Amino acid sequence: MAANTKPVLHGYFRSSCSWRVRIAFALKGIEYDQVTVNLIKDGGQQRTQEFQSVNPMQQVPAVEIDGITLCQSLAVIQYVDETRPGAKLLPADPKKRAQVRMISDLIASGIQPLQNLYVIQKIGADKVQWSQHFIDRGFKALEPILKQTAGKYCVGDEISMADICLVPQVYNAERFKVNMDQYPTIKRLNQTLLEIEAFKVSHPSNQPDTPADMSA
Amino acid sequence: MAANTKPVLHGYFRSSCSWRVRIAFALKGIEYDQVTVNLIKDGGQQRTQEFQSVNPMQQVPAVEIDGITLCQSLAVIQYVDETRPGAKLLPADPKKRAQVRMISDLIASGIQPLQNLYVIQKIGADKVQWSQHFIDRGFKALEPILKQTAGKYCVGDEISMADICLVPQVYNAERFKVNMDQYPTIKRLNQTLLEIEAFKVSHPSNQPDTPADMSA
Repeated sequence: MAANTKPVLHGYFRSSCSWRVRIAFALKGIEYDQVTVNLIKDGGQQRTQEFQSVNPMQQVPAVEIDGITLCQSLAVIQYVDETRPGAKLLPADPKKRAQVRMISDLIASGIQPLQNLYVIQKIGADKVQWSQHFIDRGFKALEPILKQTAGKYCVGDEISMADICLVPQVYNAERFKVNMDQYPTIKRLNQTLLEIEAFKVSHPSNQPDTPADMSA
Repeated sequence: MAANTKPVLHGYFRSSCSWRVRIAFALKGIEYDQVTVNLIKDGGQQRTQEFQSVNPMQQVPAVEIDGITLCQSLAVIQYVDETRPGAKLLPADPKKRAQVRMISDLIASGIQPLQNLYVIQKIGADKVQWSQHFIDRGFKALEPILKQTAGKYCVGDEISMADICLVPQVYNAERFKVNMDQYPTIKRLNQTLLEIEAFKVSHPSNQPDTPADMSA
């Protein structure tokens, strides 16, 4: 596969981790092809043998790029940041880079996994309460951290991977009826970011696989 | 705070994410001070107001370094890798770096959070079965990925952040009685890595806060 072939994103419109990658591609101006993996239909297309050969973890996103297949959204985002021109998604200053990664990982390891589809399917009837609990727990920690690090965006005045993680997590919080008024900094950052074109074009309501009754 | 002050690691001997940081410090030859945060005693010292001012997420590790406080082990590891001399914990090649991050995140986002203390405390009586389920789920995905990427270590023949994540996760798997014979590549890599000095000195059985009946 040639390095200049368009990347292929295996994703799902409502997957928050797929949305992270879509935002990164939009911010970097990277054209890509999308393959829908419907996480609900047919008991979940991520469970097929065919998709397991793409990502044995049975999750989206998975990205075919430059002849390799990468899973885990933050690995994909940092790979394109390191190999593609355009806006930098991690700051040059090592301390700021560390803060961007800390905030990204707080969301990607500390919140999102606990309200992931395969986890809440195991939780069953209590899934809304369970998800609210862990999103609230994470946001209670994130709010004071962002109060210290944020400028216009999560870390200072440049958009970064932290912002890419924040917006899809707030979208999930709203789906699970978390009261965002408790988190004024998160709420303000999210509103600012949603005005940016890269966050709009990548939004779950605007994807090729978005159902007609959910599109904007 | 001067940049050459020793870092302070707030950790716990048995915390797998604290162990990751200890391995990284040992591999880089970084001297540090340890402050014990006993996750069990007094209902959990991570819950105190005092510790929440260090890490609002009420988790270890947290590291004071170069005048800032960093939480999230992979952010700490990449920060010291970018700012300290010595062995490189991420390879120079972008594709290999991406694979290292993918494997690290598969563990740090896809497995560890689901068997974290604050999660299994919420699960209660079923916690062993729950933890086994999610570790097995993750290792079933990790095994074929490592079969493709591994040389002597997780990615090729150089020790990396992926190895730093692997060994503490296998330690947790063994605590939860996961049958490691199902995962020959993971088992082989773990055995190889445990022979290395940096993994030995950082081991949970060798820490200042290791209880007498658990030390080697």
